[in-house]
Amino acid sequence: MKAVVLLSGGLDSTVCMSIAQQSGVDIIPISFDYGQRHHRELACAKQVADFYQVKKHVVIETNMRAIGGSALTADIEVPQGQEEREHVPVTYVPARNLIFLSYALGLAEVENAVKIYIGVNAVDYSGYPDCRAEFIEKFQSITDYATKASVENHRIIIENPLQYLTKGEIVALGIKNGAPLHLTTSCYQGGALACGVCDSCVLRLKGFREAGFTDPIPYQDQ
Amino acid sequence: MKAVVLLSGGLDSTVCMSIAQQSGVDIIPISFDYGQRHHRELACAKQVADFYQVKKHVVIETNMRAIGGSALTADIEVPQGQEEREHVPVTYVPARNLIFLSYALGLAEVENAVKIYIGVNAVDYSGYPDCRAEFIEKFQSITDYATKASVENHRIIIENPLQYLTKGEIVALGIKNGAPLHLTTSCYQGGALACGVCDSCVLRLKGFREAGFTDPIPYQDQ
Repeated sequence: MKAVVLLSGGLDSTVCMSIAQQSGVDIIPISFDYGQRHHRELACAKQVADFYQVKKHVVIETNMRAIGGSALTADIEVPQGQEEREHVPVTYVPARNLIFLSYALGLAEVENAVKIYIGVNAVDYSGYPDCRAEFIEKFQSITDYATKASVENHRIIIENPLQYLTKGEIVALGIKNGAPLHLTTSCYQGGALACGVCDSCVLRLKGFREAGFTDPIPYQDQ
Repeated sequence: MKAVVLLSGGLDSTVCMSIAQQSGVDIIPISFDYGQRHHRELACAKQVADFYQVKKHVVIETNMRAIGGSALTADIEVPQGQEEREHVPVTYVPARNLIFLSYALGLAEVENAVKIYIGVNAVDYSGYPDCRAEFIEKFQSITDYATKASVENHRIIIENPLQYLTKGEIVALGIKNGAPLHLTTSCYQGGALACGVCDSCVLRLKGFREAGFTDPIPYQDQ
């Protein structure tokens, strides 16, 4: 049995990969070179894929900068510290998870995979609309109409095992599963050293603190 | 008011573009350079966009050949003549319309557009699962969850005005609307002259015949 895993090279998707691997399926990670500011995550994704000795790692190249509208894909500054959560953050990339899941669905169909794993999470909520459980439920329902597989009654299940975990629980689970957290990156700035102050770094550090572990990756000013 | 139009450079999407234009909205076409065998359609899309003097034409580049699984994106032969319709044709590209609509949704959000036009059609049915009305309905329902726009109650409507038209009716409507059908291509082989025998050519020629017009584009062996 095969499963496609959305692998960004960050903490959540790597823990998600460890969960898929523990379930005994053959994992096919899919990553995206989409013009992201933190392009460095792609190198991390490759290292994580190598760590798991996968037979195939699909990297989709696409210029999401042609759409823009995000601090990660346009010339908009990445904010420092967590923003107020009344608004969707400027680091939200329009329709990104929908686009990524759509490619994963195409790949799952071609590979005859039965599952797609995505590391979305709603407890330590990023404020991204496409990380909500309702969004994943809607995507599940469209998979039953969008593909040749759906016509042939080959159902592809979307797994979102991190949906209701806190960041601390995600870190603890990753460590328990032996996930290579030292190979991951989360910083939106994309430098060789994590900034420690962007939304994503703040959430990650909080997760390690809650789990009672030290983050193995290097940060600026340490 | 703005609307995003999925423009392949083919007959249906060009007629769809003419419908959007007649409705009085500012049209923003989006096209895809996805490694398609019939790459020539992209040059047609640019000519159609120029014909309508659009302010902006977004071209997304992406390597769908990394997924493959189709005669249009892998080394699989394009069949001649219409296949039996018991199976989904080999020219079906896994999850393509879902991927394309997802990008269109991201663009619609960034542009603050209120509609997305797609020229899918189910009467002279191509056999593609992602051309069915049910698929479009499902996509409409996911748009209400996938984006920042959805959180902010800015609804984006999917328009599929060709859904229930025959090819003949589509051709007649395009001619009535002054659509530049002479600038379009439909052939899956992607040569300078349309082959006249692939599924897509056969359907197109049938449409012109039914509408009582001569197809203005050149074919082989004429």
